[in-house]
Amino acid sequence: MLIDRPDFVQALDANHAWRLMNTGATVIVSAVHAGQRNAMAAAWNMALDYAPGAAKCAVVIDKQCFTRGLIEKSNRFAIGVCVREGAAACMALGSTSANNSPGRDKLIPLGIDYFDGEPHADGALPLTLGCAGWLECERYPEPHIEQTYDLFIGRIIRAWADARCVANGKFLPLDQIPPELRTIHHLGAGNFVVPGEQFSP
Amino acid sequence: MLIDRPDFVQALDANHAWRLMNTGATVIVSAVHAGQRNAMAAAWNMALDYAPGAAKCAVVIDKQCFTRGLIEKSNRFAIGVCVREGAAACMALGSTSANNSPGRDKLIPLGIDYFDGEPHADGALPLTLGCAGWLECERYPEPHIEQTYDLFIGRIIRAWADARCVANGKFLPLDQIPPELRTIHHLGAGNFVVPGEQFSP
Repeated sequence: MLIDRPDFVQALDANHAWRLMNTGATVIVSAVHAGQRNAMAAAWNMALDYAPGAAKCAVVIDKQCFTRGLIEKSNRFAIGVCVREGAAACMALGSTSANNSPGRDKLIPLGIDYFDGEPHADGALPLTLGCAGWLECERYPEPHIEQTYDLFIGRIIRAWADARCVANGKFLPLDQIPPELRTIHHLGAGNFVVPGEQFSP
Repeated sequence: MLIDRPDFVQALDANHAWRLMNTGATVIVSAVHAGQRNAMAAAWNMALDYAPGAAKCAVVIDKQCFTRGLIEKSNRFAIGVCVREGAAACMALGSTSANNSPGRDKLIPLGIDYFDGEPHADGALPLTLGCAGWLECERYPEPHIEQTYDLFIGRIIRAWADARCVANGKFLPLDQIPPELRTIHHLGAGNFVVPGEQFSP
C-alpha cells in the first residue's frame, strides 16, 4: 500500500545513481500510467552511461509484462536496487502478473509497500520498499531494440537512496551495511547471493 | 601468455551459459582479429535472452577500447565471468589500454595467462584465467545502438566453465565454492564485493 516516504529515504544526485547498479543486483522495475501502477522484478539490468546530465541504464522487460505496457504509454519507469529485506517482495513481484490480478493491481493484493516518487502529471512512480536506491528514468524510445531484444533504455532523471546503506552517491563500506540492507543477486529459480566481503585487488 | 586449456575448464552448454551472468559479476571481454588479441574489463553487462539456440548477452564497450575495434572487424567476442583469483588481472586489464602498448599487445606485458577458445579462421578467442566461465559470442551488428550507447549484443555460440565452481550449467551452492573462485562485483574505483551467503526468500 502507499505509505509516506520514510525518513531514511533521501534524495540522491541523479548523476551518481548509476553506481548503485554497478554490482549487478536484481532490481524492481515500476511504472504508472493513468492511475494504474505496477512493479516487476528484473535480474537483467545494467548501467549504460555515466555522463553527467545523460546518465542512463538498460533493463530487459519481456513483452508479457504488464509493467511494459505502462512504460510504453507513459515513457517513464523506476529502477529499485533490491536488498535482502525486500527479497520476499521481489520474489512475489517476479512470480505474479498484474494481467491475472483483479483490476490489474498486484501491489495491494501482494501487500507491497511503496511510496511516491516525484509528482508528475501522469502519476508519481511507485517506489517499493526494500531497495538500496531508486532511479526514476525517462524512457529513450528505441522501438527496434525494444521489439527485437526486449531491451529498454532510460535516462536517469531523479534518484533516491536509503541513507542506511548509501552516502554521497556510493554504497557505504560493506561492513557498515546491515545484512538485511545488502543487495541481492539472482542466481535463478529463486536463489540469491548477497555480498559478504569487500576488497580491493 | 598462451597456456594449454586447464583440465578444470570444461565445455558448457551454450544454452545455459547466460546463467553465469545472472548475478551481475564484472566480466572480461576479449577478442581477436588477424592475430591481434586483446581483453578488457566491463562491469556493465547482462544476459539478454535465454531462448535455446538464441541465448544472448549485452555489454557496454567504450569507443576508446582497442578491443572494440577487434570486435567490429571480427564480429566475435568472449565474455569471461570474473572470480576473485582473477581480480588483479581484471584490474590490470581495466586500467591499461593496448592503444598505449608496444605492438598493441597488452596481454604479454601484463602477464595475463589465457587459453584458446574454439579454433576459428580468424584466430581462437583468448580466454583469460580467473573466470568462472567463458561465453564465446557472435556479434549481432546493431550499428545504431553500438554508436549511440556503446552497447554490443552477442549470441552465445559456445561456452566453457570452471568445473570447480560450475556444474550442469549452474554455479555450485556458494558454500561449496572456495573464496578465490567466487564472482567479483565492481563497486567502482577498484573496490569489489564478493558473495558471502546464498539464500532463498
